[in-house]
Amino acid sequence: MFGTDTKGNVFFDLFVKSAQNAHQTAKLLADLLDNYDDVANKVRQIKNLEHQGDDYTHRILESLAKTFITPLDREDIQRAASRLDGITDQIDTAANRMMLFKIVKPTEDAKAFAAVLVRATATLIDAFEKLRNLKKSDAVVNCCVEVRTQETEGDRIMQHAMAGLFEGPDLDPVEIIKWKDIYRMLEKAVNRCEDVADVLQTIVVKYA
Amino acid sequence: MFGTDTKGNVFFDLFVKSAQNAHQTAKLLADLLDNYDDVANKVRQIKNLEHQGDDYTHRILESLAKTFITPLDREDIQRAASRLDGITDQIDTAANRMMLFKIVKPTEDAKAFAAVLVRATATLIDAFEKLRNLKKSDAVVNCCVEVRTQETEGDRIMQHAMAGLFEGPDLDPVEIIKWKDIYRMLEKAVNRCEDVADVLQTIVVKYA
Amino acid sequence: MFGTDTKGNVFFDLFVKSAQNAHQTAKLLADLLDNYDDVANKVRQIKNLEHQGDDYTHRILESLAKTFITPLDREDIQRAASRLDGITDQIDTAANRMMLFKIVKPTEDAKAFAAVLVRATATLIDAFEKLRNLKKSDAVVNCCVEVRTQETEGDRIMQHAMAGLFEGPDLDPVEIIKWKDIYRMLEKAVNRCEDVADVLQTIVVKYA
Repeated sequence: MFGTDTKGNVFFDLFVKSAQNAHQTAKLLADLLDNYDDVANKVRQIKNLEHQGDDYTHRILESLAKTFITPLDREDIQRAASRLDGITDQIDTAANRMMLFKIVKPTEDAKAFAAVLVRATATLIDAFEKLRNLKKSDAVVNCCVEVRTQETEGDRIMQHAMAGLFEGPDLDPVEIIKWKDIYRMLEKAVNRCEDVADVLQTIVVKYA
Repeated sequence: MFGTDTKGNVFFDLFVKSAQNAHQTAKLLADLLDNYDDVANKVRQIKNLEHQGDDYTHRILESLAKTFITPLDREDIQRAASRLDGITDQIDTAANRMMLFKIVKPTEDAKAFAAVLVRATATLIDAFEKLRNLKKSDAVVNCCVEVRTQETEGDRIMQHAMAGLFEGPDLDPVEIIKWKDIYRMLEKAVNRCEDVADVLQTIVVKYA
Repeated sequence: MFGTDTKGNVFFDLFVKSAQNAHQTAKLLADLLDNYDDVANKVRQIKNLEHQGDDYTHRILESLAKTFITPLDREDIQRAASRLDGITDQIDTAANRMMLFKIVKPTEDAKAFAAVLVRATATLIDAFEKLRNLKKSDAVVNCCVEVRTQETEGDRIMQHAMAGLFEGPDLDPVEIIKWKDIYRMLEKAVNRCEDVADVLQTIVVKYA
C-alpha cells in the first residue's frame, strides 16, 4: 500500500495528525488550568492523548521502514516525528506533576503558558499542512517565524514566573520547588514547539 | 590495521564493550544502593568506569577517522557512541551527587531505578551484539521495544518518587531538593538508554 | 553575492563572529560577577549580545538557503550555528536569573564557572579560525581536546558548588533553590561549548 503512495502523503497525513494531537493536548491543559476541577480525570484524558501521540510516531517510523523512496530525508522525518511527540510528552508530564504535587490552585503564569502552547501547536498544524507543497516554502518559513515569536513569549512568561516565585515575605520552599518544576516542564513544551519549527525550516531550506 | 577490517568489526566490538561498561556501571550503582556502605570507595569505582566509557567513545571516534568505508553511517556511529557514553555519565553523576549530598539512606525508588538501569543496559548489550548481523534487524528492533518498555517502567518509578517526596506532614525542603535532583539524574540515565535504542532503530531501518 | 563565494567564506566568517559574540558574553558575565554592581544594566548588555547571537544564527541559516554548494555539510553548518548560539543563550539565562532572584552576592564557584566560559569560548574562536583550513584538521582537533578539558574543569566546579550548597548548620532552602538553578545554567553553558567542539570534530573527521 505504501509502495503506491508515490507522493508520500502517508507521512504528511501522519505529521498533521500528530500536530493536531499536540494541539488537542494543549487545549486540554488550558481547560484543566482554567477550570481546575475533576483533575484526575482531566489528567487521564491528557495521558490518553499522549499514548495516541506515541502511536502516530510509531506509525510514521513503521511507514518509513516500508517506504523505499521518501518525500523528505529519512532523518528529517524521524526528527520531526520525535520532536512533535515531545510536545505532547512534556504537556502530559506537566499536567501529571500538578496532580502528583496535589496543586490546589493553578497560577496565572501557568495559564499563560497553556495559551502559548495552544497557539504554537495551532501554528504547527498549519505549517505541516503547508509542507505538503514544498514549492510554497515561504509559507512554511512564516509559520516557523511565528512559532519562534511564541517561544519568545514563553521566555517572557518563564521570567515573570521565576521572579514571582521568589517574591513576598513568607516564601514556602516546598511550593517554590513544586512550581519551579511545573514551569520547567511547560517551558520545555514550548521549546519543543520551536524544535519542531527548526526541523521544518531545515527541511524547507533543502528544497528551496 | 583498521583498513583491513572490511567488516567494520572494530566498531561493533567497541559498541558492545561500551554497552557492557554501561551495564557494569549500573550494577555498581545497584550494589551501592543495596549495600549502602563504603560509599566514597564505590562512587570512585563508578567514576573509573565512567573514564573507561570515555575511552571507548574516544577509540570509536578515532577508528572512524581512520576508516574510509564504515559499516554504518558515520553520523549513526558517532551518535550511538555518544549516547552510550551518556548512560554511564548520568549514572556516575547520580552516584556522585549521593556522596556530595551526604545521603544517609537510599530510597526504594532509587533502588527501583537502578534495577531498571541494570535490565535496560543488559538489553542494549544484546542489541549491539545482534547489530553485527544487519540481516537480523527484527532481533534488534525487538531489543529496542524492550528498552522502551523499560523506559516506561522508569517513568512509573519517577511518578511514584515525585509523589512520595511531597507526602507526609513534616516535609524537609532540603531533603526534597536533594532527592529531586538525584531522581532526575536517574531518570535521565534511563532516558539515555532509550536514546540509544532510538539510534539503533534508525540504523536498522536504513538497512531494512 | 553568496553565489560567487565559492570558498564559503561567508560561513566561516559568521561562525567566527558568533564565537566571538559568545566569548564577549562570557566576559561580560565574568565582569558582572567580579564587580557585582549596576546589575540590571549589565544583564541588559548581556541580553543585547544574546540578540546579536540570534542575528548571526539567522544570517548563517539565510546564507545556507541561498548557497547551492556549501563548504561543509548543511546539517553540520546548522548544528554548529545553533550550538554556538546555545552558549550565549545559557549565559544570558544565568545572568538573567541572578537578577530575577535578586541575588545579593555572587559565589566563588559562579566566578570560577565564568572563568571557564571565558577560556572555552576563546578556544572556540581559535577552532573556528582554524576550520577555514580543513587540511590543518589536527589544529582543530587540538582545540576540541582543550574545550573538553575545560568542560571537565566545569564538572569539577559543579561538584564543588553542589557540595557547598548543602554544607553548614543553617541551610536556607530558598537560597539553595536559587543557586542550584543558576549553577545548572552555568554548567549547561559549559556543556554547550563541548557540544560545539563535538560538531567541530565531526566536521573535521569527515575531511580527514
